[in-house]
Amino acid sequence: MGLRTASEYRESLRDGRVLWYRGARVDDVTTDPELSIAVEHSALDFVVGHAPEHRGLAVTVDPETGEEYSTYYRIPRSTDDLLDRMRLVELTTALGGTLLSIKDVGSDALFALQTVLQGEELERLMAFYRHCRTNDLAVAVAQTDVKGDRSKAPHEQDDPDLHVHVVDESDEGIVVRGAKMHTSLTPNANEVLVLPTRAMKADDADFAVAFAVPPATKGLSMYVSPYSGGQRHPWEHPVSSKHKMLETLTVFDDVFVPWERVFCYRRPELAGPIALAFVEYHRFTAISYKLPLLDALVGCAEQIAEMNGVVGAGHIRDKLTQLVIYAETVRTLCEAAARRGRIGADGFCRPDSATTNIAKYTFATGFHQAVRSVQDCAGGILATGPGGEDWDSPDVRPVLEKYLRAAAPAAERLAMINLISDLTVRDFGGYHAVLAVHAEGSIEAEKMQIFRAYDASRAIGLARRLAGLE
Amino acid sequence: MGLRTASEYRESLRDGRVLWYRGARVDDVTTDPELSIAVEHSALDFVVGHAPEHRGLAVTVDPETGEEYSTYYRIPRSTDDLLDRMRLVELTTALGGTLLSIKDVGSDALFALQTVLQGEELERLMAFYRHCRTNDLAVAVAQTDVKGDRSKAPHEQDDPDLHVHVVDESDEGIVVRGAKMHTSLTPNANEVLVLPTRAMKADDADFAVAFAVPPATKGLSMYVSPYSGGQRHPWEHPVSSKHKMLETLTVFDDVFVPWERVFCYRRPELAGPIALAFVEYHRFTAISYKLPLLDALVGCAEQIAEMNGVVGAGHIRDKLTQLVIYAETVRTLCEAAARRGRIGADGFCRPDSATTNIAKYTFATGFHQAVRSVQDCAGGILATGPGGEDWDSPDVRPVLEKYLRAAAPAAERLAMINLISDLTVRDFGGYHAVLAVHAEGSIEAEKMQIFRAYDASRAIGLARRLAGLE
Amino acid sequence: MGLRTASEYRESLRDGRVLWYRGARVDDVTTDPELSIAVEHSALDFVVGHAPEHRGLAVTVDPETGEEYSTYYRIPRSTDDLLDRMRLVELTTALGGTLLSIKDVGSDALFALQTVLQGEELERLMAFYRHCRTNDLAVAVAQTDVKGDRSKAPHEQDDPDLHVHVVDESDEGIVVRGAKMHTSLTPNANEVLVLPTRAMKADDADFAVAFAVPPATKGLSMYVSPYSGGQRHPWEHPVSSKHKMLETLTVFDDVFVPWERVFCYRRPELAGPIALAFVEYHRFTAISYKLPLLDALVGCAEQIAEMNGVVGAGHIRDKLTQLVIYAETVRTLCEAAARRGRIGADGFCRPDSATTNIAKYTFATGFHQAVRSVQDCAGGILATGPGGEDWDSPDVRPVLEKYLRAAAPAAERLAMINLISDLTVRDFGGYHAVLAVHAEGSIEAEKMQIFRAYDASRAIGLARRLAGLE
Amino acid sequence: MGLRTASEYRESLRDGRVLWYRGARVDDVTTDPELSIAVEHSALDFVVGHAPEHRGLAVTVDPETGEEYSTYYRIPRSTDDLLDRMRLVELTTALGGTLLSIKDVGSDALFALQTVLQGEELERLMAFYRHCRTNDLAVAVAQTDVKGDRSKAPHEQDDPDLHVHVVDESDEGIVVRGAKMHTSLTPNANEVLVLPTRAMKADDADFAVAFAVPPATKGLSMYVSPYSGGQRHPWEHPVSSKHKMLETLTVFDDVFVPWERVFCYRRPELAGPIALAFVEYHRFTAISYKLPLLDALVGCAEQIAEMNGVVGAGHIRDKLTQLVIYAETVRTLCEAAARRGRIGADGFCRPDSATTNIAKYTFATGFHQAVRSVQDCAGGILATGPGGEDWDSPDVRPVLEKYLRAAAPAAERLAMINLISDLTVRDFGGYHAVLAVHAEGSIEAEKMQIFRAYDASRAIGLARRLAGLE
Repeated sequence: MGLRTASEYRESLRDGRVLWYRGARVDDVTTDPELSIAVEHSALDFVVGHAPEHRGLAVTVDPETGEEYSTYYRIPRSTDDLLDRMRLVELTTALGGTLLSIKDVGSDALFALQTVLQGEELERLMAFYRHCRTNDLAVAVAQTDVKGDRSKAPHEQDDPDLHVHVVDESDEGIVVRGAKMHTSLTPNANEVLVLPTRAMKADDADFAVAFAVPPATKGLSMYVSPYSGGQRHPWEHPVSSKHKMLETLTVFDDVFVPWERVFCYRRPELAGPIALAFVEYHRFTAISYKLPLLDALVGCAEQIAEMNGVVGAGHIRDKLTQLVIYAETVRTLCEAAARRGRIGADGFCRPDSATTNIAKYTFATGFHQAVRSVQDCAGGILATGPGGEDWDSPDVRPVLEKYLRAAAPAAERLAMINLISDLTVRDFGGYHAVLAVHAEGSIEAEKMQIFRAYDASRAIGLARRLAGLE
Repeated sequence: MGLRTASEYRESLRDGRVLWYRGARVDDVTTDPELSIAVEHSALDFVVGHAPEHRGLAVTVDPETGEEYSTYYRIPRSTDDLLDRMRLVELTTALGGTLLSIKDVGSDALFALQTVLQGEELERLMAFYRHCRTNDLAVAVAQTDVKGDRSKAPHEQDDPDLHVHVVDESDEGIVVRGAKMHTSLTPNANEVLVLPTRAMKADDADFAVAFAVPPATKGLSMYVSPYSGGQRHPWEHPVSSKHKMLETLTVFDDVFVPWERVFCYRRPELAGPIALAFVEYHRFTAISYKLPLLDALVGCAEQIAEMNGVVGAGHIRDKLTQLVIYAETVRTLCEAAARRGRIGADGFCRPDSATTNIAKYTFATGFHQAVRSVQDCAGGILATGPGGEDWDSPDVRPVLEKYLRAAAPAAERLAMINLISDLTVRDFGGYHAVLAVHAEGSIEAEKMQIFRAYDASRAIGLARRLAGLE
Repeated sequence: MGLRTASEYRESLRDGRVLWYRGARVDDVTTDPELSIAVEHSALDFVVGHAPEHRGLAVTVDPETGEEYSTYYRIPRSTDDLLDRMRLVELTTALGGTLLSIKDVGSDALFALQTVLQGEELERLMAFYRHCRTNDLAVAVAQTDVKGDRSKAPHEQDDPDLHVHVVDESDEGIVVRGAKMHTSLTPNANEVLVLPTRAMKADDADFAVAFAVPPATKGLSMYVSPYSGGQRHPWEHPVSSKHKMLETLTVFDDVFVPWERVFCYRRPELAGPIALAFVEYHRFTAISYKLPLLDALVGCAEQIAEMNGVVGAGHIRDKLTQLVIYAETVRTLCEAAARRGRIGADGFCRPDSATTNIAKYTFATGFHQAVRSVQDCAGGILATGPGGEDWDSPDVRPVLEKYLRAAAPAAERLAMINLISDLTVRDFGGYHAVLAVHAEGSIEAEKMQIFRAYDASRAIGLARRLAGLE
Repeated sequence: MGLRTASEYRESLRDGRVLWYRGARVDDVTTDPELSIAVEHSALDFVVGHAPEHRGLAVTVDPETGEEYSTYYRIPRSTDDLLDRMRLVELTTALGGTLLSIKDVGSDALFALQTVLQGEELERLMAFYRHCRTNDLAVAVAQTDVKGDRSKAPHEQDDPDLHVHVVDESDEGIVVRGAKMHTSLTPNANEVLVLPTRAMKADDADFAVAFAVPPATKGLSMYVSPYSGGQRHPWEHPVSSKHKMLETLTVFDDVFVPWERVFCYRRPELAGPIALAFVEYHRFTAISYKLPLLDALVGCAEQIAEMNGVVGAGHIRDKLTQLVIYAETVRTLCEAAARRGRIGADGFCRPDSATTNIAKYTFATGFHQAVRSVQDCAGGILATGPGGEDWDSPDVRPVLEKYLRAAAPAAERLAMINLISDLTVRDFGGYHAVLAVHAEGSIEAEKMQIFRAYDASRAIGLARRLAGLE
């Protein structure tokens, strides 16, 4: 089977999965007026595989079988593979209006598991990987447990269900219970791949499980966040009316998983390595998919400064330059993370961890400040301007056209203002801001990983030599 | 006539004023389901005048007539008067859920005009001031012209209407045309006071006008921004479902103003002084009304860190401490701006300009970073959590209660998460962020005023003495 | 006995104290060519007591006895007393070329001990306090132990001498051994007051001692740091050639202390409170004495920008404004720390701890950046310019006068350049930079104290009310 | 002639050049006790050419003639050439204790001139380039005019000599007068290459000159800055006692230059392009030579944290991580500037301008903050510790050994403290700080060049597409 089309993808989601939205069941995610926006957004990953101008980047041919498959599933075996993956993620995110598409996260997790697992567990995983790749599936990852009190380990919580855990096993498989949160893309994925959330010790063995189930599996319920939902006038929300990513609280209520889909079973010693291996690939994906967002901020600021007639002001140039420095520094670090990738004994090329995390940290700590600069160039009209119904009204639009033009016609200027407001001010902007701080690990986690991954020998050697200590 | 009640205030708004909202006319701002939230919010300023616990701060007695009037209208004649005004603004903003109430801005402008005007213009203004004070009116200020191309002066614009200007005069009064934007509170005010937006030269004489009209004046139309409008579930939006401020594009289509309400007429030399005098009082109001917002950020971060069980982590303590430093520095500067106030020959006590602007600049440049720290303490659930309809559902709420508790019950934790999301992530949070950058003048304007207002003599004298140059 | 004169002060230092400098003994600190600069600098505190223009601030009259004494010794009993102390410290530091004089630190410690001690220990301390005040003595404080491995408690160190500790006691007194470092002003003080350096537990009882000895006490040796010593041409070093503060490694080699001078003896429970009480007064002194340094930076930047002819450039104005904001924010916080002072049951007025520490933190974290801005305004000539011998040379000076003038004559411009280089670039500048980070406690200590001292009730109350939790 | 030895280099400097130091003439720069340190430092560039382990990087073979020459003179024709140059500069700077050696700057200028000049001027330059390369000369660059009032153009200054200019011409050559400042390395170079300092217009034709002269040319006088001079005990100053760079005020008092050494003559239209072309190569050199300094800061902070026993503290780890992020970001940007290099029609590969300037800007704006972090890890002993004569004294050293050890012996810890103090606190540290701000152009110049060089088309295209404007 080759690369699926967008309509095949859509069709595959009509399987009776249990979705709750705004307090009620949703029968079909592809037809719900709000949720279907996310389906259409993710369909992009299936469109590029058939678009002549993108196939070079999006499609890979298996050298042995001649089979075509999505490049997302191509195991990175060289720094060029990493650069290609970076470009593919950047491409689909740019097409997706600064929002990640759907095949990125799952393939990150499938690579990570291959680098950690061994023996029978690895064989099961490889069978699942081939299943996903051959059938061109969209795989969501459920990793973050709901956790309860953050100051306690999984087994110390009042309620063991606060981390997904094993409650039974048999010859056929295992039964799991608990809930994951922040699980992106589950409502419109074909598989849910479950990973442990953190390093664990022997006491936490029941919580050290990794497995995969289809979303329509009995006992699995997904509660979709209504954040940034609701009717969105396309004039007011030029991006978020067309692009959307869904997050769920994903509840496993005694879900049965057959052994062939269990990849880690009561192995606390693997929980930390799996989590780390995943995040290493996934943070590289993250910095790749942030690049269009940063480009958009730079472009928005430049354009609105032009349209407002203030691009010549010194302080505006200063803000534009700061935005360029920020965006280009993240881009440079992202490329370097790929170029410095190292090929392990297992043949996997991993992005350089220190560089990846420095890139992510630079992005995450600079985002809110960058947003401020863009808002500063744009003006207060970001939060006091007219709405789509005003623009549609034959009574009101002429007033807006007369009074809200500047060095550009009102139509152009308001289009840019609405874009900036959508990306940085309104709830979709807030979504980007929260993701900057929390997605793919916290700022603190990135800092710790930089400290761990950095090879200090050159610096220490130089300091000691200069101090006369060698 | 004494202090009005909230219901008298509400009643006074039913006067046929021309309001447009979402492309259509609104007949009665007090009954419109969305706009009436703003009316109820502003009614707070009329409630405090009758609340025994607040009357000490909110009500002033005229020593000569014994008449009671709103303290907002008390001319500051001492640094204690400024401190009282600061406390009153802080009180009503705290009651108003971090949002300014309604009497602040207008009284700032009325003070400013009294310090700049002279002769007959001052007499007219004083009559208007007494009218507002005696009748306990809510006065909105319309200052920011729509401006067109920011690189050109008013008279250089293609369309002279891009700044409000005089188009005719007669023995009875003048006729004005043009539009102001970012005019806060106009839909639910009793008077609209119009000020020039910037310094002007002789060529711009037609644009150098200040006057007042009631909102229901013929030719005056207000186009209300739908920003942050729409249905707001009170569980999801604990603040913005109850508190709201309206901004309009305010169009003057050949509006007649009788002479007794014209306070500045074709006097370009007064435009700059009026704008500056207004902003000096208004920025002091601004830093006063930001204090509850900053306190709320500190309190939110501390509470959610406790509820998440992470308050003991070093990096969380660091973020909490940074928030305290930020909030307390702005508060200290605000108090100092009052304490350093100087009484002029006209008997008006003005807050210290350098200190006021340093406070405002510190607030404005630190806000986005502070928001990031709060979001960091709270977690990704800010943008992936459940909604009000989920919480209301008997099917969903038990799931949320089970899985979304941490070191506090889910009900408390989600209440705090919703508050943080409302204040910092969703569109109301974006509103606060844009206001931080743009309201009461830009960051650049604050910087320029600091440079102008700072008395460098002590610093220069010391440097020259140490350099041996004196 | 009344206020001493500078020459009486000088004379009092010739007592056979054991001073080492650059590997050799120094017989008389008042005549050593390098060390005597420090004596002359500290003599300032004795000059102001006799200068008519400063006596109002520098001299206090005992209301009961009519005796005059140095205001440094006046116990602060009101916020006005704190403001007076702030002004006195600021005055003498400005006269002292940005460098602290000598009576500040000792009086801080004497106040602190009075607020912590009780019973017989307090009586001994009061006798010592009266002795110092009546005889107008200069009291140095030795607090920071050399510490050894910072990850271990005093009693855990390999060598117990790494913290000053008791080695013997008798009816006459105690014998102590160990060493303190960073002890400022000891070589030219009349008394050395020793305080414990940190909180201690029962195991550390031997280290929990406080006492006072004259510098010439047997067994006491002081090793003066040569940092920033050496010949200093006054043209090149306009400040550091005239002003100097000495730090010593202060070794107690079985020093006998009579009981009447022992203020804390094996009382580990008092070690933390003493250290904290001292730092609370001393950090307030610190922010007071930093004000002239910050003023000097502002003045230097403004003057050199004028002299270079670049004061009109936008980015230079930006830097000047940032410097003003920095200096004025610290000043405002310092004043507020005094104004918010609280009078305890013991009658002592203490500066507000949170505000004091925010001021200190703001100073400490902003200093290096401020230095960068000043250097930016001044130019590379700071580190590539001519020296005093060049300027003195009849061959070279005309070349410098011709070529190194700008918008001011070379003589003036180079005087200002030399001042900036002395304050921010050369070793004296480095001294200020290291003091910014480390003096009166580390940045981290300031942060922790802010967190501890801040009263969060208003912020938490507001957040909980807005979240509907009260 | 092949690569010179260090002693040949030394010998070549004994030519009667006119050097002034501390108000007096210096006869021989190679024997002066202070200035000879700089000669020995620069000799490094001649040592590496004969060191087997460095010849691969330091020596290039001409493919046509088989002649060996210094790699510094290799014209970059590919991104690999740029990377090699970066590594060579980094190598010699690391060997040179964080200080640039001598062949870098001159070769940057020789490349730049080749890319701008044409016709006869280019031929003369090429002859000079071959002369320098063949004879393995050290070429200093004199670019920055003394400038006078920065707000005026060269021809507007009171004294035309404030910029180097032509005063006469003849068939043999031209005569120039004026002075350059900040001219590094002139006292120990073999040639002085003079470039114009800025863009010029027709009025400034007399100032638009570029030429080369040997330092011993009649009329040429060099006034060496005494900054950071003086006796330096090697224990106290482990780097600056061995490594030194000299700057001079370089005066041209009617200096005759023969035509074959005149490369630009009264061509104001070339002044800007030459200055820009030079700075583009030279800023790339700059970011290459800063890498060892940044590595040294990282290594110093890590080592002293270990030695103090505080490496486990959270806030120390945070500072170490910030230092790593800073150093690695600059390194990554530097490498990317080379990798993104573009080969022009002239065959020269130029480092990417936007990336180079972002690297330089990141370095320059982060340096003071990085210094603060290193100082924070090290402790106040940086400015209060013992000196070399103390360490040499048999009386004092035992005291220091006993009391100043921590988690490492005093000898090691003090060696590291002295290194940190030398690099960041004392006058040599101040030299690095001033260079960070001013060398190779100001921070403001870097910002302007980033804005100019950045290709905004991708960002603008994306923003316009998302706004629906394409």
